[in-house]
Amino acid sequence: MEAPLPEPEPLKALIEALRRLPGVGVRSARRMAYHLLQHDISGAEQLGQALAAAVRDLRHCARCNGFSEAEVCPTCSNPKRDASVLCVVETPADQNMIESSHGYRGLYYVLMGRLAPLEGIGPQDLQFDRLLRRAGDGQVQEVILATNFTAEGETTAHYLSELLRAQGLSVSRLARGVPAGSELEYVDAGTIAWALMERRST
Amino acid sequence: MEAPLPEPEPLKALIEALRRLPGVGVRSARRMAYHLLQHDISGAEQLGQALAAAVRDLRHCARCNGFSEAEVCPTCSNPKRDASVLCVVETPADQNMIESSHGYRGLYYVLMGRLAPLEGIGPQDLQFDRLLRRAGDGQVQEVILATNFTAEGETTAHYLSELLRAQGLSVSRLARGVPAGSELEYVDAGTIAWALMERRST
Ligand SMILES: [Zn+2]
Ligand SMILES: [Zn+2]
Repeated sequence: MEAPLPEPEPLKALIEALRRLPGVGVRSARRMAYHLLQHDISGAEQLGQALAAAVRDLRHCARCNGFSEAEVCPTCSNPKRDASVLCVVETPADQNMIESSHGYRGLYYVLMGRLAPLEGIGPQDLQFDRLLRRAGDGQVQEVILATNFTAEGETTAHYLSELLRAQGLSVSRLARGVPAGSELEYVDAGTIAWALMERRST
Repeated sequence: MEAPLPEPEPLKALIEALRRLPGVGVRSARRMAYHLLQHDISGAEQLGQALAAAVRDLRHCARCNGFSEAEVCPTCSNPKRDASVLCVVETPADQNMIESSHGYRGLYYVLMGRLAPLEGIGPQDLQFDRLLRRAGDGQVQEVILATNFTAEGETTAHYLSELLRAQGLSVSRLARGVPAGSELEYVDAGTIAWALMERRST
């Protein structure tokens, strides 16, 4: 049921743009637009500027593939981190969770996704070649696969494990202390620290 | 649990700004930010521009208080609309719904909210004086109160009814009753009681 009313163009355009956010349908988008325009103009301006700045200033770190302002992010440039261990995660949120466990001092690689054959997301989409080059820098000795313990995360870990071992690298997986079927982002930091300590080679 | 990881500033700022959207917590905001930056840069640009344009180009119509690009919106300037009837709604979405019924050819006034004493939203916040001036233009004969049939909407309608009648205007309310196309067996008893009380001779 499309509104036959001549809504002003800028309002229509804003509702359309808000609908591109994940999980936002037309009703939510309309509610968000009304809220911003009626009650939070400064929030609308702030969001508009934050989007422009993020698009302009963020790129992928050349080493870990995470979001970064610099060519190489502060974590990857930190000489105090152990360059012989590389932890592979699906998203920056997962990296945050591992970091907050204070159980890890190595480096990271952020896949920005996971293999999902049913959604048509394969190894090319995730640029596994970049990860293989990164892991083959001569410094990395061990790769810890910290993808989620979901079906897709396990598939991704299994697939990467084969590729990385073929390069002569030692590969491990977070210990099964993490409840099966759960996403790392929602697991408490203590469990993650324990699972890091108990990691097994695969 | 704040992320101790040095997230890049533009990413942090974007997540903060997305949190100002109604119904969006920190996890949703982060997911939205990742999605836009990783999978939909053009969506991020589109939303940024739509927000800037909406803030710049939209204002409240001087007559109906709805969002408008012009001083007076196209609906209020339309000479084919019946200027003797004014329909009062809570939001532009409600106006859209009434318009889509094709049962109304009069004009509108959009409250952009409703009385909600528990949230501290009173008559001043909704600028009822503007509505009273609009309804007192000498052309309006009847005001139809089409606020929602919720506790707040009913309170608002009752309050406005007194004010408008004191100005000598004829005031009506949308009829309550059994929804068109519904079976009595599945209609709640309160609605049936109302429909009985408000029964009309045929
Ligand atoms: Zn990096
Ligand atoms: Zn208007």
